[in-house]
Parts: sequence; C-alpha cells; structure tokens
Amino acid sequence: MEKGRLTAFSDGVIAIIITIMVLELKVPHADNLAALRPLIPVFLSYILSFIYLGIYWNNHHHLFQVVQYVNGRVLWSNLHLLFWLSLIPFVTAWMGENYFTAVPVAFYGGVLLLSAIAYALLTVTLIDHHGKDSTIPTAIGRDFKGKVSLAIYAIAIPLAFANRMDSLNSLTSEVIK
Amino acid sequence: MEKGRLTAFSDGVIAIIITIMVLELKVPHADNLAALRPLIPVFLSYILSFIYLGIYWNNHHHLFQVVQYVNGRVLWSNLHLLFWLSLIPFVTAWMGENYFTAVPVAFYGGVLLLSAIAYALLTVTLIDHHGKDSTIPTAIGRDFKGKVSLAIYAIAIPLAFANRMDSLNSLTSEVIK
Amino acid sequence: MEKGRLTAFSDGVIAIIITIMVLELKVPHADNLAALRPLIPVFLSYILSFIYLGIYWNNHHHLFQVVQYVNGRVLWSNLHLLFWLSLIPFVTAWMGENYFTAVPVAFYGGVLLLSAIAYALLTVTLIDHHGKDSTIPTAIGRDFKGKVSLAIYAIAIPLAFANRMDSLNSLTSEVIK
Amino acid sequence: MEKGRLTAFSDGVIAIIITIMVLELKVPHADNLAALRPLIPVFLSYILSFIYLGIYWNNHHHLFQVVQYVNGRVLWSNLHLLFWLSLIPFVTAWMGENYFTAVPVAFYGGVLLLSAIAYALLTVTLIDHHGKDSTIPTAIGRDFKGKVSLAIYAIAIPLAFANRMDSLNSLTSEVIK
Repeated sequence: MEKGRLTAFSDGVIAIIITIMVLELKVPHADNLAALRPLIPVFLSYILSFIYLGIYWNNHHHLFQVVQYVNGRVLWSNLHLLFWLSLIPFVTAWMGENYFTAVPVAFYGGVLLLSAIAYALLTVTLIDHHGKDSTIPTAIGRDFKGKVSLAIYAIAIPLAFANRMDSLNSLTSEVIK
Repeated sequence: MEKGRLTAFSDGVIAIIITIMVLELKVPHADNLAALRPLIPVFLSYILSFIYLGIYWNNHHHLFQVVQYVNGRVLWSNLHLLFWLSLIPFVTAWMGENYFTAVPVAFYGGVLLLSAIAYALLTVTLIDHHGKDSTIPTAIGRDFKGKVSLAIYAIAIPLAFANRMDSLNSLTSEVIK
Repeated sequence: MEKGRLTAFSDGVIAIIITIMVLELKVPHADNLAALRPLIPVFLSYILSFIYLGIYWNNHHHLFQVVQYVNGRVLWSNLHLLFWLSLIPFVTAWMGENYFTAVPVAFYGGVLLLSAIAYALLTVTLIDHHGKDSTIPTAIGRDFKGKVSLAIYAIAIPLAFANRMDSLNSLTSEVIK
Repeated sequence: MEKGRLTAFSDGVIAIIITIMVLELKVPHADNLAALRPLIPVFLSYILSFIYLGIYWNNHHHLFQVVQYVNGRVLWSNLHLLFWLSLIPFVTAWMGENYFTAVPVAFYGGVLLLSAIAYALLTVTLIDHHGKDSTIPTAIGRDFKGKVSLAIYAIAIPLAFANRMDSLNSLTSEVIK
C-alpha cells in the first residue's frame, strides 16, 4: 500500500494536537500584565510540548522518507503512536495548571516515555516489513539513536523544571506567609 | 473524478474527530492521583472510541486503495458515513461521564450501528459505480465481511462494559451505604 | 500556480468547521432520554449545517476539477468564501440554542447568503483567470445554476423551520400556562 | 527531502488556527440583536486576524512555489513560524474581549512582529539551503519586501483601532455617567 494517506493522516493529527494545546491558554478577563502571570507556567508547558511534538513530527518525516510501502500492521503501529501523542495536550495542561508539581510532571514524563516506546515499536514494524537487507534499518537505526537521546533529554527537562518550580513555590509561599 | 480530495477530506475529518475527543478529558484542578479517578471511565471510553475510529480509518484506507474514480453519489455516501462518525465524540463523552450506564451505552451502540450501515452503503455505491465485473466487488466483499464481524464485536464490548460497570456501581453504592 | 495547496487548505478548513459544530452538542450530566430533549433543536441545526457544508464541499470539489491553475486573486476569493463558511458554526449554535426563533434564523440565512455570494465571486474570478474561451465557464455555469437553486432552497428550509418551531413554541407556552 | 509534507502540515496548522478563533465567538443565550453587541469587538478582531493569517498563508504558498527541497533546519524554521502564528487566537481573543485596550493590543502587535521575524528567518534559511546563485533569492526578496510593508501596515491597523476604540470607550463612559 502507498504511504501517502498514513503520512497525511499523521500530519493532520499532530497539527491538531499542537494547535488545541493553545486552547488551554484561557483568555484572562483583565487587560493588564498581572492578568497574564498565572498563565506563565501554562505557557512554558505549551512551549515544551510544542518542541516535543515538533521533534516527533520531524522524526516521523525523516522516517517515512525512507519508507517505501506500508501494511495493516504499520497503520496500527502508527495509530498506537498517535494515541500516546494525543494525550500530550491533557498532561501538558495538567502540569501547567499545577505549576509543575510532582504527580502531573510524572504523568507528563510517562506519556512521553510511552510515546517513545510506541515510536520504537513503529520503527521495528517498519524494519520487519521492509526486510533487514534493505537500506532502511541503517537509516532508522541512525534516527533511533538520536531519538533515544532526545527522549532522555526530554524527560530530564520537565523534571528539572519541577525541581526549580517547587523551590520557587516554597519560596513564594514563605514570602506570602 | 479523482479520489484524492475525498480521501484527504475524510482523513481530515477523522483526524479531528479522534483529537477533539481528548478535550473531554477535563484537566483536574488538584495535582494528586485521586483527582484522576473520576476520569477513568472517560479515559476508557476514549480508548474504545479511538480503536473504533482506527478500525474505520483502516477500512476506509483499504477500501479506497482499490477504488479508481468517484462521482457525486460516492461523495455523498462518504459524507453520510462521516456524519455518523462525527457523533462518536458526543456519545463517547456521554457514556464516559455516566460510568457506562444503560441509556448512553445504547446510544453509543446506536451510533456505531448507523456508522456500520453508512459504511455498507458506501461500499454498495462504490460497487455500483465501478461495475460488478471489476475486481472491486471481490476486494470490498472480503473487507465487508471482516467489517461486519468487527462491528458486532464492537457493539458487544460496550455492552459488556455496561454490565460490568453497573455491577461495580451497585457494589460501590452498597459499600458507601 | 498549482491548485493543490488551495484545495488541501480548503478541505482542512471545511473539515474543521464541520467537526467543531459537534462541540456545541454539550454532553448532558444525566444519563436518561429526558436529558437529550433540550439538545434536539441543536442536533437538527447541526444536521442542517452539515448538509449545507457538504453541498459547498461537493460544489468546491466539482469546481476545482475543471480549474487548471490559480493566482493570488483566486487564493483571496477562496479565503473570502472560507471566511463566511467559518461563521456557520456560530450561527448554527445560536439558532439551535434559541429553538429557531426569528433573529438567529435571519442571521443564519444571512451567513448562507453571503457564502453563496462569495462562491459566486470565486467562480467569476476563476472564469476571469482562465479566459472565456476555455471550457471552464460552461462547466462553472452549469454548476452555478444548480448552486443558486440550492442556495434558495437552503434559505427556505430554516425559514420554514422557524415558522413551524415558533408555532410549536407558542403552543408549548400556552399548554404550560 | 520533498517539500510536500511541510506544506501539508503548515496548511493543517493554519487551517486549525483560523477555525478555532471562531470558538471565541461565544454563543449568546438571548435571541435578540442586543445580545450580539458585546461580540462586535471580538468579531472585528476575528476579521483582522483572519486577514493576517490569510496573508501568511498566501505568502507561504508563494514562497514554497519556488522552493525545491527542504532539510531539517527548514523544518524547524517553519515550526518556529507556526509557533508564533499559533498564539494569534489567544491574543486575538484577549484583544477582542477587552475592547482593544492598550496592553492586549501591544501583545497582539508583539505576536505579529515575532511572526514576521520568524517568516524572515525562514526565508533566510531557505536562501541558505538553495544557494545564492539560484533564482530563489530574487523571488523571495521580492516577496519579502511586500511582506515587510504588509507587516508594518498590519501592526498599524490594531493601533489605530485601539486609539479609536479608546476614544469611543471614554465617550460611552461619559454618556453613561
């Protein structure tokens, strides 16, 4: 089967995921700068998720450059990846609304991890489908290594944020007290 | 007429349907695990509908691989299918918010049934348009059988869920009493 | 310029317009049939607008089958059409929530009329761009006549609805009194 | 790499951005003309942003007509542009809800400015990638000049609006007093 509809559908889903995250930036009623302050963590988590989804879209783009044909298993592996990516707006909003506290950040990391696993499974399915003698495993392998390091980096950032934000929060609470 | 825009439009609509269902996972204000508990049935119904829509997208993909040209009647048959699919987010959310009780589950099953009928009508229209001597009826017929069994299976799952959830609910209510 | 991106962009916008209208079907909290009753007019107006947008997508599809190339003016004429179509979810929801009373129905009709005018302007721009000697004016002309009659029909339906619903409303109010 | 997926993804994101702005036109409960009055500034800001996004989509369309191939840097430059464009619905809604007062208008202008810078960076990346000897710099240069003047014009309009609206507001407040 041709790969055209798979990439078009994936582009559509990722485009919508990226864009509906902006809906979480609830428009404040007041028209001053102070009204924007509570939106700062929501905005930071939006930037973070935009970058992650950008990485996934880029990797997907590179990956399917070398793919020549797809089958039912590839379609489902791809849908599995899109499923985990579709949860990113939810965990992003939860993390942003709660100023990067521990539980939401852990769930955010969890969704990223499951997306990374789904991506790895997709590449395995593609290698399986194209045969190990084709040039695809090499291209995918190179891409996969980069992806893993990116994923580790990706999970590290929100954790670092969480720590910093926690310190900031306790500081703020003390000042208010 | 070429089939390119019909498949692109269908991909767009299904991609949006799949993605807006996530908006029903309302972000909780608290940042602990307990805050996620009321979302469990909503999340389960999301997974279920994601799989159904995945099945439809897959079948649509396979079906239009063998289609060579379309006409006005095919366009409308396809829009008819998309209409019923577009109601899935509504019935999914209703079923999820009400912990899989009888009436919402019945409506969920009803929308799935009408989607299956719309899909069957689409295949009939396509066979009609391509002529019975082409290789398309065979391909569609094979696909159709698979689809019917899937549809039956599909309606069975939420019903099973409903039963189990009802027992769970009555159990919980008794414990609370 | 190629027409590919214009049709892809239009497909995207119309797919989103059609799908976000479902978001107006607010999920009821209760799980019985009575909870669905207030949604009936919203649902009816959704069906109506789905059909209109389906007609526009179909006509757009037919129209751009004969179009060979586009220019900046065609791009803007098309965006103008998409602007009026993008207002359909708003007027649909307003009409549905107010049980087809006079003012919302008038606005609904107005948006449909302006969409029809925008479509007519788009066809004029295309004829202008392709030259009167091409086979396009004939194809467009035939399509245009059909469209006009459809548009008249389209405006007639909600008006008829409004009248019937008004009678229904006054009847209901009297019964309640 | 082929440019097909980049343009398809951009089309998707811009189509969604344009369409979700309509969701800010909150459906009024009353069915009379007075109920629409508070929506007028929201509607005006929608028209304004629709035109801006139309300009960007048009320019993007023209730009990628002359582009022949893309690389990773082009993908990221394009995502950077889409990031700023994705903030337009937020600043549009904020500006509309606050009747074009100073701070929201300043943020609106800021997002437009950053979008213009992102577009300029994208063109620079493309020139870099295609080489200065190709016909692309000329085409881009011509387009870029037009874009800059449009951007200046674009920022001027909301500022003018803001002034007029401010006068209107003070006038209205005085009349009410």
